[in-house]
Amino acid sequence: MGRIVTLGEIMLRLSPQGYNRFVQAKQFNAFYGGSEANVAVSLAVFGKDVSYTTKLPDNAIAQCAINELRKYGVNTKDIVRGGDRIGLYFCENGESQRPAKLVYDRKDSAIAKAKREDFNWDKIFDGADWFHFSGITPALSDECAKITLDAVKAAKAKGLTVSIDLNYRENLWDAAAFSKAIRELLQYCDVALGSIEEAELAIGEGDGDDCNTVLKKLVEKFQLKYATIILRNRFTAEDVDWTAVLYDGSKFYNAKKYDIHVVDNIGGGDAFAASLIYAITSNFSNQEIIEFATAGSCLKYSMNGDVNLSTVDEIIKLMNGDGSGKVSR
Amino acid sequence: MGRIVTLGEIMLRLSPQGYNRFVQAKQFNAFYGGSEANVAVSLAVFGKDVSYTTKLPDNAIAQCAINELRKYGVNTKDIVRGGDRIGLYFCENGESQRPAKLVYDRKDSAIAKAKREDFNWDKIFDGADWFHFSGITPALSDECAKITLDAVKAAKAKGLTVSIDLNYRENLWDAAAFSKAIRELLQYCDVALGSIEEAELAIGEGDGDDCNTVLKKLVEKFQLKYATIILRNRFTAEDVDWTAVLYDGSKFYNAKKYDIHVVDNIGGGDAFAASLIYAITSNFSNQEIIEFATAGSCLKYSMNGDVNLSTVDEIIKLMNGDGSGKVSR
Amino acid sequence: MGRIVTLGEIMLRLSPQGYNRFVQAKQFNAFYGGSEANVAVSLAVFGKDVSYTTKLPDNAIAQCAINELRKYGVNTKDIVRGGDRIGLYFCENGESQRPAKLVYDRKDSAIAKAKREDFNWDKIFDGADWFHFSGITPALSDECAKITLDAVKAAKAKGLTVSIDLNYRENLWDAAAFSKAIRELLQYCDVALGSIEEAELAIGEGDGDDCNTVLKKLVEKFQLKYATIILRNRFTAEDVDWTAVLYDGSKFYNAKKYDIHVVDNIGGGDAFAASLIYAITSNFSNQEIIEFATAGSCLKYSMNGDVNLSTVDEIIKLMNGDGSGKVSR
Amino acid sequence: MGRIVTLGEIMLRLSPQGYNRFVQAKQFNAFYGGSEANVAVSLAVFGKDVSYTTKLPDNAIAQCAINELRKYGVNTKDIVRGGDRIGLYFCENGESQRPAKLVYDRKDSAIAKAKREDFNWDKIFDGADWFHFSGITPALSDECAKITLDAVKAAKAKGLTVSIDLNYRENLWDAAAFSKAIRELLQYCDVALGSIEEAELAIGEGDGDDCNTVLKKLVEKFQLKYATIILRNRFTAEDVDWTAVLYDGSKFYNAKKYDIHVVDNIGGGDAFAASLIYAITSNFSNQEIIEFATAGSCLKYSMNGDVNLSTVDEIIKLMNGDGSGKVSR
Amino acid sequence: MGRIVTLGEIMLRLSPQGYNRFVQAKQFNAFYGGSEANVAVSLAVFGKDVSYTTKLPDNAIAQCAINELRKYGVNTKDIVRGGDRIGLYFCENGESQRPAKLVYDRKDSAIAKAKREDFNWDKIFDGADWFHFSGITPALSDECAKITLDAVKAAKAKGLTVSIDLNYRENLWDAAAFSKAIRELLQYCDVALGSIEEAELAIGEGDGDDCNTVLKKLVEKFQLKYATIILRNRFTAEDVDWTAVLYDGSKFYNAKKYDIHVVDNIGGGDAFAASLIYAITSNFSNQEIIEFATAGSCLKYSMNGDVNLSTVDEIIKLMNGDGSGKVSR
Amino acid sequence: MGRIVTLGEIMLRLSPQGYNRFVQAKQFNAFYGGSEANVAVSLAVFGKDVSYTTKLPDNAIAQCAINELRKYGVNTKDIVRGGDRIGLYFCENGESQRPAKLVYDRKDSAIAKAKREDFNWDKIFDGADWFHFSGITPALSDECAKITLDAVKAAKAKGLTVSIDLNYRENLWDAAAFSKAIRELLQYCDVALGSIEEAELAIGEGDGDDCNTVLKKLVEKFQLKYATIILRNRFTAEDVDWTAVLYDGSKFYNAKKYDIHVVDNIGGGDAFAASLIYAITSNFSNQEIIEFATAGSCLKYSMNGDVNLSTVDEIIKLMNGDGSGKVSR
Repeated sequence: MGRIVTLGEIMLRLSPQGYNRFVQAKQFNAFYGGSEANVAVSLAVFGKDVSYTTKLPDNAIAQCAINELRKYGVNTKDIVRGGDRIGLYFCENGESQRPAKLVYDRKDSAIAKAKREDFNWDKIFDGADWFHFSGITPALSDECAKITLDAVKAAKAKGLTVSIDLNYRENLWDAAAFSKAIRELLQYCDVALGSIEEAELAIGEGDGDDCNTVLKKLVEKFQLKYATIILRNRFTAEDVDWTAVLYDGSKFYNAKKYDIHVVDNIGGGDAFAASLIYAITSNFSNQEIIEFATAGSCLKYSMNGDVNLSTVDEIIKLMNGDGSGKVSR
Repeated sequence: MGRIVTLGEIMLRLSPQGYNRFVQAKQFNAFYGGSEANVAVSLAVFGKDVSYTTKLPDNAIAQCAINELRKYGVNTKDIVRGGDRIGLYFCENGESQRPAKLVYDRKDSAIAKAKREDFNWDKIFDGADWFHFSGITPALSDECAKITLDAVKAAKAKGLTVSIDLNYRENLWDAAAFSKAIRELLQYCDVALGSIEEAELAIGEGDGDDCNTVLKKLVEKFQLKYATIILRNRFTAEDVDWTAVLYDGSKFYNAKKYDIHVVDNIGGGDAFAASLIYAITSNFSNQEIIEFATAGSCLKYSMNGDVNLSTVDEIIKLMNGDGSGKVSR
Repeated sequence: MGRIVTLGEIMLRLSPQGYNRFVQAKQFNAFYGGSEANVAVSLAVFGKDVSYTTKLPDNAIAQCAINELRKYGVNTKDIVRGGDRIGLYFCENGESQRPAKLVYDRKDSAIAKAKREDFNWDKIFDGADWFHFSGITPALSDECAKITLDAVKAAKAKGLTVSIDLNYRENLWDAAAFSKAIRELLQYCDVALGSIEEAELAIGEGDGDDCNTVLKKLVEKFQLKYATIILRNRFTAEDVDWTAVLYDGSKFYNAKKYDIHVVDNIGGGDAFAASLIYAITSNFSNQEIIEFATAGSCLKYSMNGDVNLSTVDEIIKLMNGDGSGKVSR
Repeated sequence: MGRIVTLGEIMLRLSPQGYNRFVQAKQFNAFYGGSEANVAVSLAVFGKDVSYTTKLPDNAIAQCAINELRKYGVNTKDIVRGGDRIGLYFCENGESQRPAKLVYDRKDSAIAKAKREDFNWDKIFDGADWFHFSGITPALSDECAKITLDAVKAAKAKGLTVSIDLNYRENLWDAAAFSKAIRELLQYCDVALGSIEEAELAIGEGDGDDCNTVLKKLVEKFQLKYATIILRNRFTAEDVDWTAVLYDGSKFYNAKKYDIHVVDNIGGGDAFAASLIYAITSNFSNQEIIEFATAGSCLKYSMNGDVNLSTVDEIIKLMNGDGSGKVSR
Repeated sequence: MGRIVTLGEIMLRLSPQGYNRFVQAKQFNAFYGGSEANVAVSLAVFGKDVSYTTKLPDNAIAQCAINELRKYGVNTKDIVRGGDRIGLYFCENGESQRPAKLVYDRKDSAIAKAKREDFNWDKIFDGADWFHFSGITPALSDECAKITLDAVKAAKAKGLTVSIDLNYRENLWDAAAFSKAIRELLQYCDVALGSIEEAELAIGEGDGDDCNTVLKKLVEKFQLKYATIILRNRFTAEDVDWTAVLYDGSKFYNAKKYDIHVVDNIGGGDAFAASLIYAITSNFSNQEIIEFATAGSCLKYSMNGDVNLSTVDEIIKLMNGDGSGKVSR
Repeated sequence: MGRIVTLGEIMLRLSPQGYNRFVQAKQFNAFYGGSEANVAVSLAVFGKDVSYTTKLPDNAIAQCAINELRKYGVNTKDIVRGGDRIGLYFCENGESQRPAKLVYDRKDSAIAKAKREDFNWDKIFDGADWFHFSGITPALSDECAKITLDAVKAAKAKGLTVSIDLNYRENLWDAAAFSKAIRELLQYCDVALGSIEEAELAIGEGDGDDCNTVLKKLVEKFQLKYATIILRNRFTAEDVDWTAVLYDGSKFYNAKKYDIHVVDNIGGGDAFAASLIYAITSNFSNQEIIEFATAGSCLKYSMNGDVNLSTVDEIIKLMNGDGSGKVSR
């Protein structure tokens, strides 16, 4: 199989240690993440050939982000260097009734100010089979919306499978803008994932439909091969349950539900996307696909940072029923 | 509204990191706290004009305590400098069936050895509307009992509202001494808070009365404007439930109950007192007062250290029903 | 009462901090532990006269292990110095559905390559009343199996009480080898503890018997004074329940069951063994013995590292019903 | 004496721990500093009444900067809240032949995008005697240049003493722009400090004059009360020598020279400015002024972070000859 | 050879990390030390049989101090438990021109309030050959002065060699009180060490005599076997030079001088005392004694904490000329 | 230019933090390094295409070593997975007169037990121009000596340039064995570097020749293109001076000498080798080659860990004379 290409923004994340609040922090833990970068790292840890493209300034902090990607085996040859800054966000962990808190400082980052001509899609997609991106990328700037559209069109033209994580971020654009942009991009997609609310926005109609109805509409409207919806109930900052449904145009596949004690709330959806892509590209059965994607993302919640560091073996062990947390000697 | 004045002892708290026991500790995290200091910090974070008075030695460690108060906006102009030492306590976090463990070393601290003439109440209360203290302050020494009495009398004479957190500490005095001293101080108070057991000791009669009966007796005996009782069930070192009742002399107001996963067991009652004072001085309705006080103290349990660092917005969000811990972007 | 002697392998344990995975670790916390060393430390903390014997190289890292034992009061005079290396293991904490993960690097450690003549049992057992070891020690090497047999024979000859923690480790030997070796050693034992599965392997027959049946067979086959079986259900990496049964040849004694939130999964069984030995040698009643052993090991789970640092008072407090985690001032 | 007012930009500084390079950092130490903020903190630690004004966004990270100022006693009432972001810089400590390395990310910070109408100088200077700023403030944006000019004019009109730290930053503007802007501002100044090179740029003529000639020209051209030049030789990242000369229009005063082992290279000049202002406003003799300023800034180099945390006593002790580093019991 | 007995106060030392000042500290590193405890630990690390006696409260923090002593092999059987508190001191590291700073909080510690009857010298000295103490112990309280006198008399009576580190602490008593008390104690001593100034105070006459004259007077006045004077020049907080002279009543022995880069300024004299005792009790020649004592204490300066953790081999290597710091593989 | 291939052993290095000694360590910093791995990382940071080959077990700790190499851009495709363990060493930093201390635990590592057939040199050298190894690799085992010989022969046959860092390790073999093995390997080398002592052992004759004589003999005996000798004087654990001489068969080139304050003593020679290879393969002049190699390795000493993280720009800046450590903004 060929390379999986991902496109997005990777940011420096700064988090106070443990349960400290921002005003108590004398140190910040540094992580590097972003929706598609997290997908790329997880796929690389699974052993897939995966590349990540973005634009990053030519300074030592951006180099740290690249090094973090390389560390896990992501191919970074298509990262464009230039621009002024790497985007940042500050993330305070939540606990019990206190929610996690994010302060974004990503405006005018190198990728947000990138130009269409920065990316040579022919070259980037050379040898690739799959292209993945999220709804955050087109939201970064008008130019980024065009870059994303360039990418999906080029991917489609070259015969790649295209997947989208709908990922609606209210602080980047409003529902109408999201809805409009995503609808256009979905024309070129084969696989989509998101929450019920995001899927409804993408479809642009319906309000309060149930999961299966939404999945059906989504697949039919955009002639997708697969659509999946993640179902999450959050009880406190550290307690969620988590499952998902896959629809392949003819049948619905429901995954096991996990009651999760959360270590880090960031990156669950990205872990799901990576596991989903892995399972599809590894020719798992449809039921296995949704179980692997759900189990893989469940494990992410037990790890610090944005990325899922689970191996394929670890996920299969959980998916096959061993969620007992027995010490692995 | 005028300034809120608080009086008490602030100590250096030394805690091993994470779940480490004392005998495993190579480092201690340093916090600075004490019942009334915690109230003052929380009120300052809420945006209130609040001052804290105590006596602290003229050395660099005591300066750290003052700096910590100033950091959050507490007015420290009325802190008297002198004496030999700042009180200390060592605090080992508990977990599961293992309780938190405290070793006090507060004897002969500067405030415990302070003299009545150290405090000029006329000057301290100038421009003030409210005075708050706890049952710990009069327990520090005979002279501290007199200082506290001086303070409540002066406050009353100047027309301030006076609030007391009953706070009975068995390792400082016995029940009879507590009961006698507190009864005298309550003559000058308008607002009181504590547990059922503390309230019964303060009333000096009754044994095993229910919450409402105790509240009624307390308000009637001391002609209080408000009395509140905190109801807490502790299941393990990290699991408590928490609610409270307010009585205004005519009606009982019950707050929502929270199931809390505890990060740090110190300072819940102080957070309650601060939230209560905030809500009363901000003209909340009686139901809102008890909900705000309960939600505010609930959030404290999710934070390291002695003090509640919640903002008013965060508490109102929880009080209005969003305890789901959804990431706040 | 005389000294308690223990024999085994103590290793350097290297653990990433908090919930970090191995690939995220820039630091490792260093602990020193091993089944019998953990028993020795716990007994020393209880105030017992206890010695630990093993073989350790004459280098600074092995010295750290000895220092850790001495720190808690274990007598280390019988530790033989020599050989090339101290055994290591890497331990990644688990959380939620993600299990703890161990990577062993203990091959060719000084004790694994020790010779029978390294140990002078006459001298080691001089002044001793009790000898404790686990099923790990004979598994380290063929020579270690002989050393262990030498020890139990010498202990028996000198009239010591001998206790064994069955402790079957699949990565050291297979079930048949374990079964054969343990059966021979059990001839010389008075007290045995383990899981149902381990006890069945030790008996060498039965498959799926219930706890009491297994205990009965074990005591009868090897004419033990006491046998205990630990009953544990593991729900996730951080949630277990934990209880135990004692059989004295005539009656079964069941302990209270604890629902435990786990800080560190290593050393629960060792804490049980130490508490059991303490209770027996302190002339507790049979019911008190099993309650103390169970409560003592329950508390271990709330502590970082391999060893139980609970005092006798703390365990008795829990055993007498105060598992509420109330702050101990 | 009245309040000292300062104006500038305070940034979040993120530094890897110890000698780590950026690419090795998993944590960043967080400091909050900026030339004038550093001056304000140092003056507050000296016990002076000092306020700091700037513009900062209304988020939790900017609140940390304010808290840090308050912690040391700086009055923050004149800080305007608004805008998008707090400026950042990353700082890697140097050592031996490896220089410290700074990566700035301060563009479009709240102060850089502030408007003249954000600042009410009449109110800010009410009760003030002194105004201090540096050459960095007018460099932040064209509007900031105007804000600075507004400030010095208002200060002059109200009869305040005005001091400037020339502080030329090549990455913010070029020498010609600096020279032009500073010359205009110097019309309203009474006290100036800087390096020989900065002073020559400010004067706008001369090239390679010696220190005293430059000082004389500077004082005469702008009719200053005092001008001082810092003379620093840097040998490696951790070895500098440091002295200064003061000229009062009639006489030159030379300070003792210190051979310094550097802990942190940031903030030496700011510590000098603060000590200079302290000494002048405390009516020290001219020789004492330059000795105090030099000794105070010498001590800064031994501290982590941007700010000088020396007390007046500590500086006087050094200035009076005790640089032996004898333990202060 | 028999046991070496030491008597004194061990305190908890709390130090900010690295070069942080007290006001910057969010954590304190915890060390346990005191002049004689430091001597005891160093002798234990050298392999000597050494015990330490003091009085410590029966709480978990005092237990940490005992554990630290046991860790290095010090016999703690003669430590009396009781009293209220363990003494504390806070220690801020110095650097360059900034001196280390100590804040003591040792008043009313268990040993300062100990009674003569707490110590059974007959039992403590049973099996002992040597008794060591410092001039700090009699300064702790009047009763401690008596306890020290009891000890030296009992030691003398039992034929032990008695050594004193003069150790004058200005914050505990004045020169006259020190002089008087020490003179009495010196009657019972065989070996004394200190600075020129301390020796002159002990002699009670002379002012500005040179080192050899002082040594001669000291030995003659108190009929000592050995007296040594440490000669230290301090240049900055991190640069000292260090040598010593030994006088045996007939001849002076000068040690090599070391230029030291200081990691931690505490405990140099104690390391000297321990090395001196080791060398004397190991029958080194007089020249070797003073070289070993000087080299041993030189190495202490390169270590964190109060105690010298050098082995005999390491000191001999340095003493024999290899101070090149070549990596020891 | 083609790829640079390196071969050797990469180990996990465990170092106590800061100046802590082993017996004080509760944490170890984890680094991954080895002579040739350090060369590979430095070359990758310089931007060269470089691969590293070795054998590592298929476990999570070995994966960390691979990730560390990938992080900096080293190609790890030729690392063979298998065997039992990754080698370890413990490294305690030195300071002042106290030397750094190493405890090795590298016996029976995967590479030490590797077989000749594990490596397919044809494939490994495909597309390569240069092969580098050190005298440590053949010392790991008899089979490793053969593997190294296979490699140099294959490299030579394929026309690669071959470089050797002589690197004699006394704890792996004796001088005679080293001398014999290295002489055989040098037949196939083009570039050699080392100390005078190592070069003399390699030549197998001469004793006490001066640097130039040794260089001349070395080049002539083995018909090398370049030989360099590093000249280091060590004064204390933290103070060295450092320079080098290059001989090209006709002329000697002397580099500038640096007085270095050492942060970490490991990896200086490896940094030299990497800088040397970089300079040669970048067609620097001979004088530039030796200056670049010396300046590059000088900078290494200012960094934590085994590897040089300097960029080409940083080295050229130092080499061109700016060693003043001026802050790089």
